[in-house]
Amino acid sequence: MEVLGLLYEGKAKKVFETDDKEVYLVEYKDDATAFNGEKKGKINHKGVINNKISSFLFQKLTKEGIDNHFISQLSDNQMLVKAVKIIPLEVVVRNVVAGSLVKRLGKEEGTVLKTPIIEFCYKNDALGDPMVNHYHIKALEIANEDEIDFIEKEVLRINDVVKKIFLDCQLDLIDLKVEFGRNSESKIILADEISPDTCRLWDHATNEKMDKDRFRRDLGKVEEAYQTVLARLEKVLQ
Amino acid sequence: MEVLGLLYEGKAKKVFETDDKEVYLVEYKDDATAFNGEKKGKINHKGVINNKISSFLFQKLTKEGIDNHFISQLSDNQMLVKAVKIIPLEVVVRNVVAGSLVKRLGKEEGTVLKTPIIEFCYKNDALGDPMVNHYHIKALEIANEDEIDFIEKEVLRINDVVKKIFLDCQLDLIDLKVEFGRNSESKIILADEISPDTCRLWDHATNEKMDKDRFRRDLGKVEEAYQTVLARLEKVLQ
Repeated sequence: MEVLGLLYEGKAKKVFETDDKEVYLVEYKDDATAFNGEKKGKINHKGVINNKISSFLFQKLTKEGIDNHFISQLSDNQMLVKAVKIIPLEVVVRNVVAGSLVKRLGKEEGTVLKTPIIEFCYKNDALGDPMVNHYHIKALEIANEDEIDFIEKEVLRINDVVKKIFLDCQLDLIDLKVEFGRNSESKIILADEISPDTCRLWDHATNEKMDKDRFRRDLGKVEEAYQTVLARLEKVLQ
Repeated sequence: MEVLGLLYEGKAKKVFETDDKEVYLVEYKDDATAFNGEKKGKINHKGVINNKISSFLFQKLTKEGIDNHFISQLSDNQMLVKAVKIIPLEVVVRNVVAGSLVKRLGKEEGTVLKTPIIEFCYKNDALGDPMVNHYHIKALEIANEDEIDFIEKEVLRINDVVKKIFLDCQLDLIDLKVEFGRNSESKIILADEISPDTCRLWDHATNEKMDKDRFRRDLGKVEEAYQTVLARLEKVLQ
């Protein structure tokens, strides 16, 4: 396989085309950003850690019947994925109140939700990734009603699987953000990554934050938290 | 009928209890606020104008089979309404892009939407009336799924009726914000008001703004615009 040009560079990953038009190469970076890019930094070894964590989780999701873009781990910080056209939506599932939900609902961080909350944000840096609903998504011609319904059902299944895996690692999945893409047959499948960059994870015993909130809030020991998540996953998934 | 104590004072109206526990008295004020109360002012005769416009529209909606809280106009700036417990949601229907939708969708003001967009905001001054979706509404225990579905269908019917009335007045209904309440039998009915405070109305021929945006944006001739809307409605509905 030959790697061709850079297709897209995001805040945390680079995506390259390959000589197989059905296959992209994803390279995970150590760069970290927060607050719509206002805060910038690096988390040492993040690229390697998140590539490994995502690879583990995508393989586990495949086994559970959840179609996703993962093909194989190529190197420490690279994976091969199915070429998809990303749907410009951040799809968030929340099990416990944290982050922006504190202000939206007026509930304390840590409040457990009776049933998960799904939120959609329109991936658009210039607009600040605004929250959108089904009507907005249709007006923007991002997806139709059937596709939105599929995404909602799928993200709840993903949440169930990932929540269970992390609980086996003594981590509570507070919320997670995923993205979907359309493959060459226009089928919608899970894409992007699943990592401490995109999940809030709290230690089950101590409630210690083990995710990107350590970077966002300058809590220190950011790399250590990411390494711990990876080590616990490796122990459980071996 | 005897008027008892003040039950609630909002930004644009006062609500009084009466000796009939099924009946409230609503008094419309001239006070105007915008941007979550940051901008304050008065629009001369607004109380009288909005009471008359709302009375007209509620009666017309009743005739069209849309249940609402209106009982009768009591005086120039007062109406009697059925006692309801307000559901703390601003229910917005949008036919044309304006206001906050410009920034949310990244589309120009004036862009006509193929189908109306519905938005819900949680009425909560302290939180800044955040936009919420079905999941948030259920988590806040504001309404259940069947009730949300009813509200969405009802607000589209309301939009159809009000849009047609205003078009007969040479006014385009750009968007409208309504509120619903539960009566003593827990039935959900339309409440609050429908006026240039709560609708965006543009002159059909010139696109001139004939609503509260004149106040929000200091466009001048605010009272004149409100008076024009009333005069045109009176002419059409007589």
